[in-house]
Amino acid sequence: MSFEGYFDEFEDRAWQECSQGTVRVAMVGIGWWTREFAIPAVEESTFCETTVAISSSREKVDRLVEDHETVQRGLTYQEFHDGEAVDAYDAVYICTPNALHLQYVETAMELGKGVLCEKPMESSVERAEQLVAASESSNTPLMVAYRMQTDPVAGRMQAAVEAGAIGDPVFVHANMTQTLLDIIEDPDQWRLNPELAGPGASVTDIGIYTINTTRFVLDRDPVAAQAVMHSEQDAFDTVPDERAAFQLSFEDGIYASCSASQNAALAGHLKVTGTEGEITLEPAFFANESRTLTLQRGDTVAEYSAGADGLGPAPDGVGQMREEFDYFADCILAGRHPSCDGEHGLSDMRTIEGIYESAERGERVEL
Amino acid sequence: MSFEGYFDEFEDRAWQECSQGTVRVAMVGIGWWTREFAIPAVEESTFCETTVAISSSREKVDRLVEDHETVQRGLTYQEFHDGEAVDAYDAVYICTPNALHLQYVETAMELGKGVLCEKPMESSVERAEQLVAASESSNTPLMVAYRMQTDPVAGRMQAAVEAGAIGDPVFVHANMTQTLLDIIEDPDQWRLNPELAGPGASVTDIGIYTINTTRFVLDRDPVAAQAVMHSEQDAFDTVPDERAAFQLSFEDGIYASCSASQNAALAGHLKVTGTEGEITLEPAFFANESRTLTLQRGDTVAEYSAGADGLGPAPDGVGQMREEFDYFADCILAGRHPSCDGEHGLSDMRTIEGIYESAERGERVEL
Repeated sequence: MSFEGYFDEFEDRAWQECSQGTVRVAMVGIGWWTREFAIPAVEESTFCETTVAISSSREKVDRLVEDHETVQRGLTYQEFHDGEAVDAYDAVYICTPNALHLQYVETAMELGKGVLCEKPMESSVERAEQLVAASESSNTPLMVAYRMQTDPVAGRMQAAVEAGAIGDPVFVHANMTQTLLDIIEDPDQWRLNPELAGPGASVTDIGIYTINTTRFVLDRDPVAAQAVMHSEQDAFDTVPDERAAFQLSFEDGIYASCSASQNAALAGHLKVTGTEGEITLEPAFFANESRTLTLQRGDTVAEYSAGADGLGPAPDGVGQMREEFDYFADCILAGRHPSCDGEHGLSDMRTIEGIYESAERGERVEL
Repeated sequence: MSFEGYFDEFEDRAWQECSQGTVRVAMVGIGWWTREFAIPAVEESTFCETTVAISSSREKVDRLVEDHETVQRGLTYQEFHDGEAVDAYDAVYICTPNALHLQYVETAMELGKGVLCEKPMESSVERAEQLVAASESSNTPLMVAYRMQTDPVAGRMQAAVEAGAIGDPVFVHANMTQTLLDIIEDPDQWRLNPELAGPGASVTDIGIYTINTTRFVLDRDPVAAQAVMHSEQDAFDTVPDERAAFQLSFEDGIYASCSASQNAALAGHLKVTGTEGEITLEPAFFANESRTLTLQRGDTVAEYSAGADGLGPAPDGVGQMREEFDYFADCILAGRHPSCDGEHGLSDMRTIEGIYESAERGERVEL
């Protein structure tokens, strides 16, 4: 395999088993992310169609039904729990505040609907375990929405590392930062409310990308964590982690140095240094950015650039979510369970808990 | 000031006070670094000349005198301690194993010679404090050889951060890795011998670049450290840190995530993410590499690339050391003390000690 082969010969949708079929999706929670990323992604997808919208607000769902041709029904959460319009959808996408995931997953599982659940899975390890238990007892597919795992650029990074392009991995550096209050201006938003978000705002909501994508690229799990965090601004005084830096020790003695902040300039990178070379994805984690993968080994450099959809120029930024939805639907249609299932997501929940615990105690925490 | 102005209007030698003069340098220790970097750098310098070479081996110094026109005298260490040829040099450059620095600094100070001492200053905080005491009691200039601080590319990075180009700094990521046993093939080399090198091999010898350059660029000092480290290969079983990752908490709540290994592919980067933008130096720390500085703020990107000397294409890699020697000489000639003096170097020694202590104890260590 040639040096550039890691990138050129990669099959973008090696996961695809189905050639046809449609999974009708109910969107549970229709906030910013669902409206701007999930629904447009489904519109572009091969195997999905949004047919139902579910929200606390009758007015909001009615407006959404009006605006989107495929969306036939708008439901309140109560109507969803009551099983209304159950024949109008095959699966649900859950994008509500973290601490509300469990109740919607439980209902979906009772109704026999596969679930694509946003990350973090829930607000605590305990509740995430209940969520996994609900999935397992109903034997209904649960996928955690790790969109980097079906991103074709991140896939090339994973394949190159697996093929030994950088030798054995030694260090990872990863950062994800954004200015949350510029994206969602409401200071009372749920992401800053521990009762709805869980233990913090930065590690849980965006630091999780650095954790999970590192797991994906290394194909290894973390075994220990240590961390520091604090909040600087009044707007973040409800959470401990306006800024957080955390070190994860992975299997095989690999160290990942990560950082995340909801109050710093939009930026993200993922770099793996190995015994023989280095591979860098930058920018890395945002769905609406063009990305460049750079592999350096000795004096040789290979680059792979892709638009925001990972598949060529795509300025609308829905491509990464489209791949995620199609992977989820392909699993549903083919009757198999997604690789990033509940057990997979639980590892991140435990790592995140360890990070907050380490920051609090000032000690390394075994995971 | 325009966005690009941070780079274009930077004065490479803002430190220069003298227009003429020569400082005659005695090289103490004539190993790999002295022969391949220091002596060629002095040959290219404005204010320095190598006139004396000092080593344990009579044969080695004699050969060096033969090979270099300006070098008039070769001395053994004993002859140096005895004050031989004291009129043939004005200052000394010390590039011996770390644990031997103190004795040569003490002799140099007794002889009234300014000292440019390689980093780390010594093998322990205690011995570094003795080294500083010797400098202070003799009132003779002592500079620690932090070549990044007079590197014109790193200088631009510092100036941009100081000018607020990235807003307030939030996170730093820094890595420095090399394969020591490819550079110096001897498995019994002093860098792997704790009696000569100090507590480790990676943090002390190369991790120090990530620490000190972060201090320089942020103009702030670390206040706490936490770290993990271990050795994988038999060749590194004498030291605890074939691989080390360490987090430093800096003043003003800035977190630096650093890593260093003497047994990974040659690589280095330094990235500072701020509230308004991000600035990256990559590659970063090696004397013989061309470097690129990239400043991103919103949609605007400014780049500054320079050859290995930081001043334009210079494939020989001696430019960074040349700037360091000329800064040292300019201080000597102008009768002022260098900014990276003994007290400045002591901070790094204490940080390094804290890093090893944290890794050992599994706890955060206040500095």
